[in-house]
Amino acid sequence: MTTTIRGGQLARLLGQWHSLPGRHRSPDYAALAGAVRGLLSDGRLPLGVRMPAERELAESLGISRTTVSAAYRALRESDHLTSRRGAGSWTTLPSGHRVATSGLWAAGDDLDMIDLGVAASGAPLELVPAARAAADDLPRYLGTAGYHPTGLVELREAVAELYTGRGVTTSPEQILITAGTQQALDLVVRLCVPPGSPVLVEAPTYPNALAALSSRRARINTHGIDPAFGWDGEMLLGALRQTKPRLTYVIPEFHNPTGHLMAADLRERLVATAHSAGTELVVDESFVDLALDVDEMPPPVAVFDRHSRVVSIGGMSKAYWGGLRIGWVRASAPLVQRLAAIRVGVDLASPVLEQLVAVRLLRQSSQIVAARRAQLRDRRAALIAALGEHLPEWTFAMPPGGLTLWAELDGPISSALARAAEDVGVRLAPGPRFGLDGTMERFLRLPFTLAPDDLAEAVRRIASVRHDLDRGARPEWRTPSVIA
Amino acid sequence: MTTTIRGGQLARLLGQWHSLPGRHRSPDYAALAGAVRGLLSDGRLPLGVRMPAERELAESLGISRTTVSAAYRALRESDHLTSRRGAGSWTTLPSGHRVATSGLWAAGDDLDMIDLGVAASGAPLELVPAARAAADDLPRYLGTAGYHPTGLVELREAVAELYTGRGVTTSPEQILITAGTQQALDLVVRLCVPPGSPVLVEAPTYPNALAALSSRRARINTHGIDPAFGWDGEMLLGALRQTKPRLTYVIPEFHNPTGHLMAADLRERLVATAHSAGTELVVDESFVDLALDVDEMPPPVAVFDRHSRVVSIGGMSKAYWGGLRIGWVRASAPLVQRLAAIRVGVDLASPVLEQLVAVRLLRQSSQIVAARRAQLRDRRAALIAALGEHLPEWTFAMPPGGLTLWAELDGPISSALARAAEDVGVRLAPGPRFGLDGTMERFLRLPFTLAPDDLAEAVRRIASVRHDLDRGARPEWRTPSVIA
Repeated sequence: MTTTIRGGQLARLLGQWHSLPGRHRSPDYAALAGAVRGLLSDGRLPLGVRMPAERELAESLGISRTTVSAAYRALRESDHLTSRRGAGSWTTLPSGHRVATSGLWAAGDDLDMIDLGVAASGAPLELVPAARAAADDLPRYLGTAGYHPTGLVELREAVAELYTGRGVTTSPEQILITAGTQQALDLVVRLCVPPGSPVLVEAPTYPNALAALSSRRARINTHGIDPAFGWDGEMLLGALRQTKPRLTYVIPEFHNPTGHLMAADLRERLVATAHSAGTELVVDESFVDLALDVDEMPPPVAVFDRHSRVVSIGGMSKAYWGGLRIGWVRASAPLVQRLAAIRVGVDLASPVLEQLVAVRLLRQSSQIVAARRAQLRDRRAALIAALGEHLPEWTFAMPPGGLTLWAELDGPISSALARAAEDVGVRLAPGPRFGLDGTMERFLRLPFTLAPDDLAEAVRRIASVRHDLDRGARPEWRTPSVIA
Repeated sequence: MTTTIRGGQLARLLGQWHSLPGRHRSPDYAALAGAVRGLLSDGRLPLGVRMPAERELAESLGISRTTVSAAYRALRESDHLTSRRGAGSWTTLPSGHRVATSGLWAAGDDLDMIDLGVAASGAPLELVPAARAAADDLPRYLGTAGYHPTGLVELREAVAELYTGRGVTTSPEQILITAGTQQALDLVVRLCVPPGSPVLVEAPTYPNALAALSSRRARINTHGIDPAFGWDGEMLLGALRQTKPRLTYVIPEFHNPTGHLMAADLRERLVATAHSAGTELVVDESFVDLALDVDEMPPPVAVFDRHSRVVSIGGMSKAYWGGLRIGWVRASAPLVQRLAAIRVGVDLASPVLEQLVAVRLLRQSSQIVAARRAQLRDRRAALIAALGEHLPEWTFAMPPGGLTLWAELDGPISSALARAAEDVGVRLAPGPRFGLDGTMERFLRLPFTLAPDDLAEAVRRIASVRHDLDRGARPEWRTPSVIA
């Protein structure tokens, strides 16, 4: 509604718009409008952004103003832009579309859609009995107003025990219960990142982490993760020393999206360097329970923390169920109190019943997590088999855990492929969603969280449109109704 | 951690620190340190703020630097400040204290504390059966990842029906489910208020609304509500025309804290003026179900909205239970989609089970709300009787609904009284918490949400310390350990 994107910024986002796959035979204005729709549909250009003036964008792209005018007109006709005289034009949501669970836009009717945009599984069998038992636990909380800004003490104790069990002694006062890992990150960013200050994240990284940082207007620097080999220790520590970020965000266990696991020695050096660079080190442990072929897990990053530099965040969305919305922060007790004070202005506290369900589930953690791992191994095998059969030209490093595989495609086609796949009922989060500057067009994140048959069917459908893209037969920029 | 307060700002917050009640006989430095502790304990000076340099504060207060140095030293000794050479001093949380449910700091051990800081009741009897039934409703959601960024459609339908029943036709597409009314406000502020832009709120108003606006660095303007008569229509509309705020926040039904109900004709003029001033009108309907002596409720503000200027927010914390954390936004369908897109970067979605409980409770709304109203009438009567007996010099307008009474005290003693009351086991949210500039020292919000006996006992305790304040016998600035 209020953010303005400048012509140069939009031009960078648009990148090679005039030579994208599928562009054949459409006029320049239609290709430009289509490229803008693509940015909107994969979330890189947000809703409610004020677009640059036509003249400014024309200059930035080095094309005629007439072409830009025609493109804006086409975008207005397809409800992707709204203009008001004298006030400019804003990006809007076409009617009949909605925000999907992946944070991407989606067509309203999607009963047959296979959603590979979300890396999360269905709930464990233990959930319904745990919910019933939690209902029976409720009465002792009902006499109070029900607000517990740091979380129910019994859940904080259960989470503290998880950390102690992993080798880093933790007291309940060091735990803040949050509405999922995403809120844990959002609260830490609100506390620790003044607007405009530098932060460091991996590239690729989790798109919603970028969203939390962008909404705080942080200056985001990235350090690249090699798709095959993971972190380059020297480069990571060098980036830390050089950019002296206010906050550094890493996913050391089964990194999202690449699946890599950070070695113990790099963890130790990372903490030491974070301390000397004066950065808060935020460690996202969302996937730590999901080791699939690892003999021995490296110690948690917090083991190496001697100066309260490490803020660990985690939650139950991945090994248990996303529909629970239970996460946490592990930090020093004073920081936990400060985060709780911020949370009072955000949403006050987490629901009591949900926390009681979480306590019940954590008591059965070994059984639930073991079943989840077995399920994920099967699904990973099914996905890899389907890729080998239908898309053998794609390559990837075998992820030793987590939920996703980071495939290198046979061309810079990720966004075009995601748009084409919508037509055949597969939702994808294209590579550029996991970076900042549109450089991930050769990559695609493929979660192995759905049932084996669905994964196989999804890969078959993707392969079919992949081959259509080459033939250039799909006039995809001309049919705004199918872009979502 | 990163916000800096300037000397002049802190001086304004401190106000008449050198002549506050209870100040007798303590040296200047101790009185100054005590006043800072008071600001910290009642939330007006946040945690993690960088304090002005000693010299700067001395100049702003017109006192010697030695006095400021001694006060900072005393604050460090009581763990209210942490200093690092070359980097300054920050406000911190004394050990053994925690964030209370009211967002105020509280001593760790408070078993006998009567909490009048929170205006919320215990849960209705129907909650446990609803939770059990919701557990049985869960299975049909368990096959999916569990993320529903706009909310479960059955809950959105139930909330839309509430609005339609109140006379403003509403479709489920116009409803976003949130984690309580506070998150509804926070999301709207994130979308509609660019940092630094002007907003308009009532004075007094809900402290956590001020927190949401401050965290966005909005420029907050206020229009005063008369304790006896409520809104002055001409002044309110004049303030709107004059300040042209980006967003206006009002609580028209049983305003928090004063309890006033806005008349229908002012609602209509407010919407028209908001439209011509170009402001988003955010209407907090948290208390709308809690009419206690009203023959006929005025229509919802949204009835008068012809230009999508009105964003209604509400939730189940007040008439049902705060521990549920279920609220909502009612707005245009496109705005709902944009808010959902923002929420993906905040906390993704609300928990599924909690939403199913809410659906079950809303089906029994007439019964639950009727019982709540009867309970509140009894409690209001008990509070008023106790005030008449023990503190007859305090005055107030009888609130026709809601949860709170806004008492005018017999002096500018609200903060001092709140600190003294902690000693005798009563937590109060003092008047200045409901405003911006410390001008509400003559007022105190008293919720009538606890059991009649607790309310009577709380008033007895408050009356006892009220009389002590006059005698000036309490050396309260000298004992930092009791300030919380």
